[in-house]
Amino acid sequence: CIPGGGILERLDAGEVVIGDGGFVFALEKRGYVKAGPWTPEAAAEHPEAVRQLHREFLRAGDDKLENRGNKVTFTGAQINEAACDLAREVANEGDAMVAGGVCQTPSYLSCKSETEVKGILKKQLDVFIKKNVDFLIAEYFEHVEEAVWAVEVLKETGKPVAASMCIGPDGDMHGVSPGECAVRLVKAGAQIVGVNCHFDPMTCVKTVKMMKEGVEKAGLKAHYMVQPLAYHTPDCNCQGFIDLPEFPFGLEPRILSRWDMHKYAREAFNAGIRFIGGCCGFEPYHIRAVAEELGPERGFLPAASEKHGNWGAGLEMHTKPWVRARARRDYWENLKPASGRPQCPSMSAPDGWGVTKGHTDLMQQKEATSQDQLKQLFDRSKSH
Amino acid sequence: CIPGGGILERLDAGEVVIGDGGFVFALEKRGYVKAGPWTPEAAAEHPEAVRQLHREFLRAGDDKLENRGNKVTFTGAQINEAACDLAREVANEGDAMVAGGVCQTPSYLSCKSETEVKGILKKQLDVFIKKNVDFLIAEYFEHVEEAVWAVEVLKETGKPVAASMCIGPDGDMHGVSPGECAVRLVKAGAQIVGVNCHFDPMTCVKTVKMMKEGVEKAGLKAHYMVQPLAYHTPDCNCQGFIDLPEFPFGLEPRILSRWDMHKYAREAFNAGIRFIGGCCGFEPYHIRAVAEELGPERGFLPAASEKHGNWGAGLEMHTKPWVRARARRDYWENLKPASGRPQCPSMSAPDGWGVTKGHTDLMQQKEATSQDQLKQLFDRSKSH
Amino acid sequence: CIPGGGILERLDAGEVVIGDGGFVFALEKRGYVKAGPWTPEAAAEHPEAVRQLHREFLRAGDDKLENRGNKVTFTGAQINEAACDLAREVANEGDAMVAGGVCQTPSYLSCKSETEVKGILKKQLDVFIKKNVDFLIAEYFEHVEEAVWAVEVLKETGKPVAASMCIGPDGDMHGVSPGECAVRLVKAGAQIVGVNCHFDPMTCVKTVKMMKEGVEKAGLKAHYMVQPLAYHTPDCNCQGFIDLPEFPFGLEPRILSRWDMHKYAREAFNAGIRFIGGCCGFEPYHIRAVAEELGPERGFLPAASEKHGNWGAGLEMHTKPWVRARARRDYWENLKPASGRPQCPSMSAPDGWGVTKGHTDLMQQKEATSQDQLKQLFDRSKSH
Amino acid sequence: CIPGGGILERLDAGEVVIGDGGFVFALEKRGYVKAGPWTPEAAAEHPEAVRQLHREFLRAGDDKLENRGNKVTFTGAQINEAACDLAREVANEGDAMVAGGVCQTPSYLSCKSETEVKGILKKQLDVFIKKNVDFLIAEYFEHVEEAVWAVEVLKETGKPVAASMCIGPDGDMHGVSPGECAVRLVKAGAQIVGVNCHFDPMTCVKTVKMMKEGVEKAGLKAHYMVQPLAYHTPDCNCQGFIDLPEFPFGLEPRILSRWDMHKYAREAFNAGIRFIGGCCGFEPYHIRAVAEELGPERGFLPAASEKHGNWGAGLEMHTKPWVRARARRDYWENLKPASGRPQCPSMSAPDGWGVTKGHTDLMQQKEATSQDQLKQLFDRSKSH
Repeated sequence: CIPGGGILERLDAGEVVIGDGGFVFALEKRGYVKAGPWTPEAAAEHPEAVRQLHREFLRAGDDKLENRGNKVTFTGAQINEAACDLAREVANEGDAMVAGGVCQTPSYLSCKSETEVKGILKKQLDVFIKKNVDFLIAEYFEHVEEAVWAVEVLKETGKPVAASMCIGPDGDMHGVSPGECAVRLVKAGAQIVGVNCHFDPMTCVKTVKMMKEGVEKAGLKAHYMVQPLAYHTPDCNCQGFIDLPEFPFGLEPRILSRWDMHKYAREAFNAGIRFIGGCCGFEPYHIRAVAEELGPERGFLPAASEKHGNWGAGLEMHTKPWVRARARRDYWENLKPASGRPQCPSMSAPDGWGVTKGHTDLMQQKEATSQDQLKQLFDRSKSH
Repeated sequence: CIPGGGILERLDAGEVVIGDGGFVFALEKRGYVKAGPWTPEAAAEHPEAVRQLHREFLRAGDDKLENRGNKVTFTGAQINEAACDLAREVANEGDAMVAGGVCQTPSYLSCKSETEVKGILKKQLDVFIKKNVDFLIAEYFEHVEEAVWAVEVLKETGKPVAASMCIGPDGDMHGVSPGECAVRLVKAGAQIVGVNCHFDPMTCVKTVKMMKEGVEKAGLKAHYMVQPLAYHTPDCNCQGFIDLPEFPFGLEPRILSRWDMHKYAREAFNAGIRFIGGCCGFEPYHIRAVAEELGPERGFLPAASEKHGNWGAGLEMHTKPWVRARARRDYWENLKPASGRPQCPSMSAPDGWGVTKGHTDLMQQKEATSQDQLKQLFDRSKSH
Repeated sequence: CIPGGGILERLDAGEVVIGDGGFVFALEKRGYVKAGPWTPEAAAEHPEAVRQLHREFLRAGDDKLENRGNKVTFTGAQINEAACDLAREVANEGDAMVAGGVCQTPSYLSCKSETEVKGILKKQLDVFIKKNVDFLIAEYFEHVEEAVWAVEVLKETGKPVAASMCIGPDGDMHGVSPGECAVRLVKAGAQIVGVNCHFDPMTCVKTVKMMKEGVEKAGLKAHYMVQPLAYHTPDCNCQGFIDLPEFPFGLEPRILSRWDMHKYAREAFNAGIRFIGGCCGFEPYHIRAVAEELGPERGFLPAASEKHGNWGAGLEMHTKPWVRARARRDYWENLKPASGRPQCPSMSAPDGWGVTKGHTDLMQQKEATSQDQLKQLFDRSKSH
Repeated sequence: CIPGGGILERLDAGEVVIGDGGFVFALEKRGYVKAGPWTPEAAAEHPEAVRQLHREFLRAGDDKLENRGNKVTFTGAQINEAACDLAREVANEGDAMVAGGVCQTPSYLSCKSETEVKGILKKQLDVFIKKNVDFLIAEYFEHVEEAVWAVEVLKETGKPVAASMCIGPDGDMHGVSPGECAVRLVKAGAQIVGVNCHFDPMTCVKTVKMMKEGVEKAGLKAHYMVQPLAYHTPDCNCQGFIDLPEFPFGLEPRILSRWDMHKYAREAFNAGIRFIGGCCGFEPYHIRAVAEELGPERGFLPAASEKHGNWGAGLEMHTKPWVRARARRDYWENLKPASGRPQCPSMSAPDGWGVTKGHTDLMQQKEATSQDQLKQLFDRSKSH
């Protein structure tokens, strides 16, 4: 039995649940995950590295939740099993929960049938049931149709189900609005709905607000979750940050500061969202900032705050007086940080060749891309 | 005895030595170091976190060097001892070296005498000798006078001595040029000279080039080292990034990408620098990029490259064709990454109230800054 | 009788009519109009300066149209008479048309009745009828209700009537959509509808497209006009560029290049707009660029093109080879021009204190603003 | 005889002389000059347009000076004669002076001899002597050697001679420092020395300061002049704005605001410069801003200030309260104006293929550049 109760009991009680950040992006920077495939075999290969990152997020958010399986697209049962064990081990250190997650399938983009797609999703559940995770998340879905299928599959386990799409205010890839997406997910049985990945915090909060309006208008009830990027993406189109020219190896100038995270946490809370976490780009100090902003509401600060002065208070001890003068809230709240890159723009034009689900360009291919195929891609790219 | 030889043997043999990154900045983001005091008590309090970061840097640079004591300004013997043990433990895993470091003293800024300053520096050496570090570094000195004193102290141990100043092309805080600084340090006995911290990679390389020209013009010989920030700082004045309004909590948009690191590594190598590392802001993947750029010269890639495709090659497997088209060198080399912050500038005006060594504003004060003092600082700050 | 026919005959025949630019902004820079009141008494005080600007626009667009009365908010009959005479004089040089214009009244914002507002508008018509202008424009209206009143007043003259609102895609200040605004204006009798001022070219074209869609959906017919700013304003809210912090004395970095104008002209033409002109910020060379882009469709180039090579062709004779290399279309089409202002942002947050029609803040006041009132404004401004 | 005395009498008396702006750039935008050749045949072809611009500058600066011949590179005697007549005519309206100017010759770049170059310069003087201009300017010289030759030629007329180079702080194209350039020009007989064109106001003032220091160090005496661009050019190398990718058709985002001009005028005055004017990009309102900033020193405001409130005072009458709140000095002084171009950088990398005087690329060629030559240029350009 989990002290503090299950995820739904807590949300029902009005608690703020702080999620963790983006494991694959963080582990890529630490040298344990490969960008492109993004497969999380580190759980099996380098458990000490994954364990350490778990601990840092736990210490930053100090929460009863460990969200496992973030975007585990190409996963296998063995890795998932190792990952569950690891998460449970650290969760027990901090008295936290473990969630099992599934996400959108390449099969759906290749137009496989409902039965086929559901079969693929179902296969991933075995290990989560065997390891008895605390609840399940269907996350990172671009099409509400597939997300609904996933919720239907997860519901069969009897565990609480959260459903999170990677969409923005323009809705899913078929143009279904956030409000309508949320209604369908709730009707399919999701108790928690929201968005994750693909967009920056403010855009994600705006999207979840639209979901909430839709759900309430339909006379339904749900809890809400948000797990945005830690990157500013005002220039995204509906397909999100993957289409930005900077994805995934040039996103640095877009990284949010801890002060941006304060604004995000406040905005999310004010919007009525109570499951507030992060996705790609989030580092432990970002989660700490979220936890510090919501400290008054939660009644405590995370463990990592012992190493962090409130609003820059640590600077009071700096040698230079003009740096000491930065030890105050209004300084950091109003700072417009410079990029140090005068030859770079502040916004990009998203890529994307006008293709969508069902297009040949998006069909799965078993073999690695050949040199010839790459050459063609490069040429097409230059003419776009 | 150290397989592969000592630091000087390797540099003499023409090897490229890759340093690690900035521990205190990285540990602050992971929740174990407090910005402001920047004291590294994590070595004693959370050894597993420090050990993991050591491993990541070692795995990224895969080198025989572990540089300890980065900017350990307010350190005590006990912490240093724990830190030495930790560094040695991980170094042994990877067959690496451990260096002991001292840096500039607040006493010098408060105009203490040569005897007093040297006494303070000497006290820090005991633990390094007891733990038998492989070589010593005098680093992060703004005034060449004090740096020379430090080299004189370190030389007495008989160990190899490196000397690294935190200056840019305009020279030290008294206006002594980089070339002249280097000459004085070599004459004092430093076998390796260079710069660390305070400026971005290109500025640091430029500064070390000026040092090298000075040393060669004077008919002397030395090895050269560079350990820059991982932040773009074209807008700094001679005092470096601490005076930038973004220091230390709003530096995110300035973070270098891995491709910036490739350029830096090549430029440093071409300038004849063979000890190439990083300071504040460097994460393991930055060091990996340096190691990958210099792979041909070194004859091997770091362990972490097993999780990193050459020039974005990992993207060849991405679902979207326009993302696969980014799997090529010229794409990333020419990308001008956007900040996603259209309301922010690309350069700032440095702070700094025109005070320097000896000014009341910089005098040490034992007690914490009072609320009254802070209030005065805030008011002064707003009128600058 | 006017050679070439009246405005409607031409538009019916499929001609492209090129309007001129913004007289008051151009004359302010030349030293003849005061920013703030923006009154056009130059027509009476410095006719040679106004005449010269008329000639330059005529030479740039080489069209049969001279649009007079641009935003003549505080005008009196005497000035209007002088202005009409001037416009007719230059129009005759180039065989052009003269239009008489009325715009929104401060009385409407002060909640005066329909009868009062119509009375004010009607009084301005006398001079236009006496001088026999070729057609009438109701332009620069923020509220469709008042614009409809204006059209009703103008229709009584029997002359062709154009109606142009200063709104963007979000519609009028009461939230009426562009499509609905256009429908009401056409139903009131306007033969030409569109937008002018307040937004940049691309935003204005987008708005007129929405107007056209509305009109066509309602089964109505109209011609379309667009007279945007020559400033980039992606950061405007529904109230337009006046709320931007740069208005009106810091707009320089936003000025469109001639190449931006080419894109605008093409986009407007493709959208089915045939009356294509400019408003505040347009200089003669901007109108020339519009005329050059549409040269193929119109079958001729403007007179001023004798001093302008196609797509930078004049540079073929430059001394430096790398400047000669800029004498080509793709160079200028793809250039992303730098601002030379690294400490400035690329977007601003609009001002505006949340007040609208009827609010005390917007009530008319006969006397000049007092020093006390200004003091209060400055304080309020700083707290926003 | 000229009321108020000659140029030297005035400068000797401590008067501030305000020059006018850049005729060819302004006339290009008005449709009367062709970019590339930049030849000023408008003086003969469209005298009414040139006369009007003269009047606007005179009205803006209200000074006793009309500087003719700005960069008249490819001029002929007939055009110069018309230009002199025009300038004199307007000068008489306002009781002003007329100057005759010569500038650097393409022959010098093609390595012609001193005799040849002097011969070319001398030929241009005839018309100035015939028309009895008030003084002579040798301006827009990149090489001090040629500038000295020009001064020697001009001195023979017995008229006062000013010498102005188009260099920045790095000195002339052979690396001769600004101080040394100034010394040589004064020794050759120039009574006024300074810089014009190529760089932004702050850079030009800095350069003239260096000239002044050189002259004073050498124990010589002179008056100083400055006629900068109205474009921000922090990214220029020593060759100036022609090498910027935006030259000459994409410079809009760099245009200085009137408030930038206030800073420039103050800085120039404080540096001891008393002949303060403008070059390419200056419009009448820029000169007005210079004259307004120096109003207290000069004891009067220019005529055009009747249409310009002090520091935005005209806005006191604006309808919207937040716009009225901009009617104050500190608002405009501190504004960092946005570009409205989020996809553009704030600095560029200058072009330039590493060629200088004497290089084949810079040799004169009588015939127009052929299509073949252009093709080669375009290809070279793309590979740079």
